[in-house]
Amino acid sequence: MESSRLKKQIEFIKEVDKLKYIERKTRLFNSNRRENDAEHSWHLSLMAIILDEHSNENIDVLKVLKMLLIHDIVEIDAGDTFLFDTKKNHDNTAEEFVAAKRIFGILPKNQAEDLIAIWKEFEEGETSEAKFAKAMDRFQPVLQNQSNNGGTWFEFNVIYENVIKKTEKIKLGSSTIWEYVEKTIKSLYNR
Amino acid sequence: MESSRLKKQIEFIKEVDKLKYIERKTRLFNSNRRENDAEHSWHLSLMAIILDEHSNENIDVLKVLKMLLIHDIVEIDAGDTFLFDTKKNHDNTAEEFVAAKRIFGILPKNQAEDLIAIWKEFEEGETSEAKFAKAMDRFQPVLQNQSNNGGTWFEFNVIYENVIKKTEKIKLGSSTIWEYVEKTIKSLYNR
Repeated sequence: MESSRLKKQIEFIKEVDKLKYIERKTRLFNSNRRENDAEHSWHLSLMAIILDEHSNENIDVLKVLKMLLIHDIVEIDAGDTFLFDTKKNHDNTAEEFVAAKRIFGILPKNQAEDLIAIWKEFEEGETSEAKFAKAMDRFQPVLQNQSNNGGTWFEFNVIYENVIKKTEKIKLGSSTIWEYVEKTIKSLYNR
Repeated sequence: MESSRLKKQIEFIKEVDKLKYIERKTRLFNSNRRENDAEHSWHLSLMAIILDEHSNENIDVLKVLKMLLIHDIVEIDAGDTFLFDTKKNHDNTAEEFVAAKRIFGILPKNQAEDLIAIWKEFEEGETSEAKFAKAMDRFQPVLQNQSNNGGTWFEFNVIYENVIKKTEKIKLGSSTIWEYVEKTIKSLYNR
C-alpha cells in the first residue's frame, strides 16, 4: 500500500519535470534569456516567504507556497498564455481543468483532490492566500520588465492602461507592493 | 521604514535571479539538458509537499520548504560542487558561509538572520526538517540518473560503494524512500 502510493508520487515527480521546458514570454533580470515555468515558480515561492509581511490580510504561508509551487503545472498540457495575449484568454479554464485532472490525477486520490482544490482556489483568487499568491505572480514580471527597460510590455506594444489594468490586482494582495508597482509603471511610461 | 524594508527585499529578489544560471551536473529526466539550481530548488520543494507522509519524524513542512527554496542560494557566489567531486569537498562551508552572509545580508536584518539560521540548520542536517530536506536533495538526482541509464554516476565513473555512501543519508529522513533508492541503485549497478 505504502509502496503503491510512493510509486504514483514518483510518477508525478517525473511528469512535472516537463515544467522546465515551458517557456514564458518574460525574460530574466537584465537579460535576453526567457524564463521557464519551473524557475518562475521557484522565484515566486521565495518572494512569498520574503514579502509575506506586506500581505493586506493574515495568510497561511504554507498554503501560499503550495499554490505557487503548483500554479503553472497545468501549462505542461495547456501551454503558457501571455498575460497580454489579445487572441487567447489568459485564464483558459476549461483546457486547464482537463490538464489539472490529468496531471494531478497521477497522484494518490487524496493528494490529487487536495492539489486540484488548491489550484482552483488560486485560480478563483478570492481567499487571502490566493490574493497574495496572485500578487506575487503579477509582481515578478513587473520587476523583470523594469530591469529590461520595459521588457515584454514595450516588446509587444502593450499600452499603459492595459498594464495597469492587469497588474492592479496586486492591490488585492498587498497595497504596499501595489504602491511600488504603480510608481514603477508610471516611471517606465513617463506618466 | 516600510518602504526601506521593501527596497531591500526587492534587491534580494533581483540578486537571487542569478541562481537560474548556476548549472548542476545532473541532467533533466530522460534528457541531456543540465538542470539549473532554480529549477532544482523548485522540484525539491514540490517533492517535499508530495512526499512529507514518508518522513520518519514529524516535520514542520513550511520550514522544510524554506530550507529547500534557499538551500543553494550560496552557490551564486560559491558555485555548484558535484556531490562526487574528488578534489573539492561538497560542503565547502567557509566559502559558502561568506556567500550566505553577503547574499542574505541584502535583506532587512531580522530576515537575513532568520534565513542564515535556516540555511545553517539545513547544512548541519540534524533536525527532523533538515534530515527530510536533505533526503529530497539526495533523492531527486537518483530519479534523474535512473531515467538517464545511470546518468552522472556512469558518466563520471562513480563506483557503487560511493553512490551508496552518499545517498544513504536519505535513510535519516525517510526509510521508505531509502528502501526504494537502494533497490534502484542495486538494479542500475546489477547488484
